Amino acid sequence: MFEIGMRCFKCGRKYPIGSVFWCPHCGGSLDIEYDYNEIEKVILTDEFKRMPISHWKYWPFYPVNSPSKAMSLGEGATPLIKSKREGLYFKYEGCNPTGSFKDRGSTVEITKAVENGVRKALCATTGNMGASCAAYCSRAGIELTVYLPKRTPRSKIEQIAAYGARVKKIPGSYNDCLRAIHELKEKENYYLVGDYPFRTEGEKSIAFELAEKARIDSVIVPIGNGTNCYAIYKGFQEFVYLGLYEKIPRIYGVQASGCAPVYRAWIENSEIKEVKPRTKASAIAVGRPIDGEKALFAIRKTGGKVIAVSDREIVLAQKELAKEGIYAELGASVPYAAYKKLDLEGQTCVLIITGTGLKER
Amino acid sequence: MFEIGMRCFKCGRKYPIGSVFWCPHCGGSLDIEYDYNEIEKVILTDEFKRMPISHWKYWPFYPVNSPSKAMSLGEGATPLIKSKREGLYFKYEGCNPTGSFKDRGSTVEITKAVENGVRKALCATTGNMGASCAAYCSRAGIELTVYLPKRTPRSKIEQIAAYGARVKKIPGSYNDCLRAIHELKEKENYYLVGDYPFRTEGEKSIAFELAEKARIDSVIVPIGNGTNCYAIYKGFQEFVYLGLYEKIPRIYGVQASGCAPVYRAWIENSEIKEVKPRTKASAIAVGRPIDGEKALFAIRKTGGKVIAVSDREIVLAQKELAKEGIYAELGASVPYAAYKKLDLEGQTCVLIITGTGLKER
Repeated sequence: MFEIGMRCFKCGRKYPIGSVFWCPHCGGSLDIEYDYNEIEKVILTDEFKRMPISHWKYWPFYPVNSPSKAMSLGEGATPLIKSKREGLYFKYEGCNPTGSFKDRGSTVEITKAVENGVRKALCATTGNMGASCAAYCSRAGIELTVYLPKRTPRSKIEQIAAYGARVKKIPGSYNDCLRAIHELKEKENYYLVGDYPFRTEGEKSIAFELAEKARIDSVIVPIGNGTNCYAIYKGFQEFVYLGLYEKIPRIYGVQASGCAPVYRAWIENSEIKEVKPRTKASAIAVGRPIDGEKALFAIRKTGGKVIAVSDREIVLAQKELAKEGIYAELGASVPYAAYKKLDLEGQTCVLIITGTGLKER
Repeated sequence: MFEIGMRCFKCGRKYPIGSVFWCPHCGGSLDIEYDYNEIEKVILTDEFKRMPISHWKYWPFYPVNSPSKAMSLGEGATPLIKSKREGLYFKYEGCNPTGSFKDRGSTVEITKAVENGVRKALCATTGNMGASCAAYCSRAGIELTVYLPKRTPRSKIEQIAAYGARVKKIPGSYNDCLRAIHELKEKENYYLVGDYPFRTEGEKSIAFELAEKARIDSVIVPIGNGTNCYAIYKGFQEFVYLGLYEKIPRIYGVQASGCAPVYRAWIENSEIKEVKPRTKASAIAVGRPIDGEKALFAIRKTGGKVIAVSDREIVLAQKELAKEGIYAELGASVPYAAYKKLDLEGQTCVLIITGTGLKER
């Protein structure tokens, strides 16, 4: 409602909302811009302040026309669970309707797709994205075809199929799936769902919810496509800009060392180069992240770091999380492995536990 | 804090809180009684009314001493999702931390166990109970051993083990597991967790949350042990008694026809007799329900019904739920199958979708 346009994060060119999925000029990722004066009028009210936390409470920050027609499954408002370690908290995204944080993005993206009259869509996924898009598309009556690596965990494939989406197993990586749907899009002008501009906007609600709960020093986020990492930054940044929060927390991004293109770029201070994923943490096995540059920007801007953790460290982290009562998939356990490598004692730190362990069986 | 004692639901004998797990005289299920005058003082305040919905908002209705020391994982406050069918809603309990409604009971039961200094516990389960108890026990540092039927879905067994509980697979049914732990308890005075009095109290919060959201005509609940069915009744009854809600909705209980001891007792107007479970809906495959009589009481008292649905109807219901964007395990899909057999058009009806489909893989 208050969105004014899209701008390429890389070259700065401007486009009308929803006209393209990435910059046709340089291939860069797009970012949605708002009229914050208009947003301010809606949210600086007692009514807004008194409303209980929910994903759609923050509708002025999403690029949708009719929030009352939101395609929602009750996503968001996930638990913030105190760790036995002093100052440490878990934002447990496994409590979302399809078991991962992706639902925050899907509800906005599919609401937008319905507004645009979309009937058929394509999605590339390591699993969670596909399951989430399948749920919301099923509810919206949109026919979805999901491309995923052949080695995606069975429980995710079954979940996607249960929602009625068509599943195409590709002998290759997530980026091979992505290339396949981008080619199809060129040929037949399919609608794409996934880590494109609308999704980022929905994923900001993790930051909004955290900002309403506590003063946080740092946030640790897994990096797959890097979209969530940037979305959390943008959410905090918007709240700070509007005077609703004091300071953006330091953002730490975590990759599996077997698939760490963003980590390598961080260490070498270079461009992000595609790698072949070699990690058991399938949810974040993205060799060429769509929003890698945006994630690096968020991390640099807030004084954070990129950390890489080995599969052995990830498996151990998963076990230690279970002792806190948190069942996380491997890709969602990486923030805990990273936390142990950082010296954040005495700080308030939140780990984003992006998906349930039930997903990885 | 406001509990005054336990009373046998069958013979009426009274016992002090927590002294026994069932009536030592007649074997009946126990019910916790409160001083509602004291509860009233806490809840008839503006502060209570203004608090957002959360499971622990309703602590005066739970038999715990220090709600601030609750062993919580952010359970409850699950989404109430509107169906495409007019007047129909889904209470989606798959959004709980371990993926089922059991977490509402576990948080109260394990908080109580910690208050009682419990270090070791035993649990019999068709799967969800074990996973939920394992999570909360893990967090509380209680050593848990879980007895479950050999044919329990793998994802549930893996979940239980991930939380660090010991798993004992029994070649038999849920009631064989129950007999095994009851025998062990006799021998070594183990603490039991499961469908005992404290759990019922926690499961009441489904009713509290619904009562705060809408005027509801009927609620449809799966029956395994029947505990949840009675708990929902009791929750509404307490709210009505205290003037917080107008009328207890009609409560409909659903069983799989392959395991329908409560349905049979309802139809034949007889005692509940043990049956051998023959259904794919493993979560509710309970041949001899601990709280069957309590469930029947709740259903009769509210003018509801017991319904039995075939495995074919359940599988179809699961598919139809997926079209609404709801991924439910078979045992959680039975309310939808029952809804289709009842004529509830024009009414506000809530289906309790007790667990996520990710559980059954």
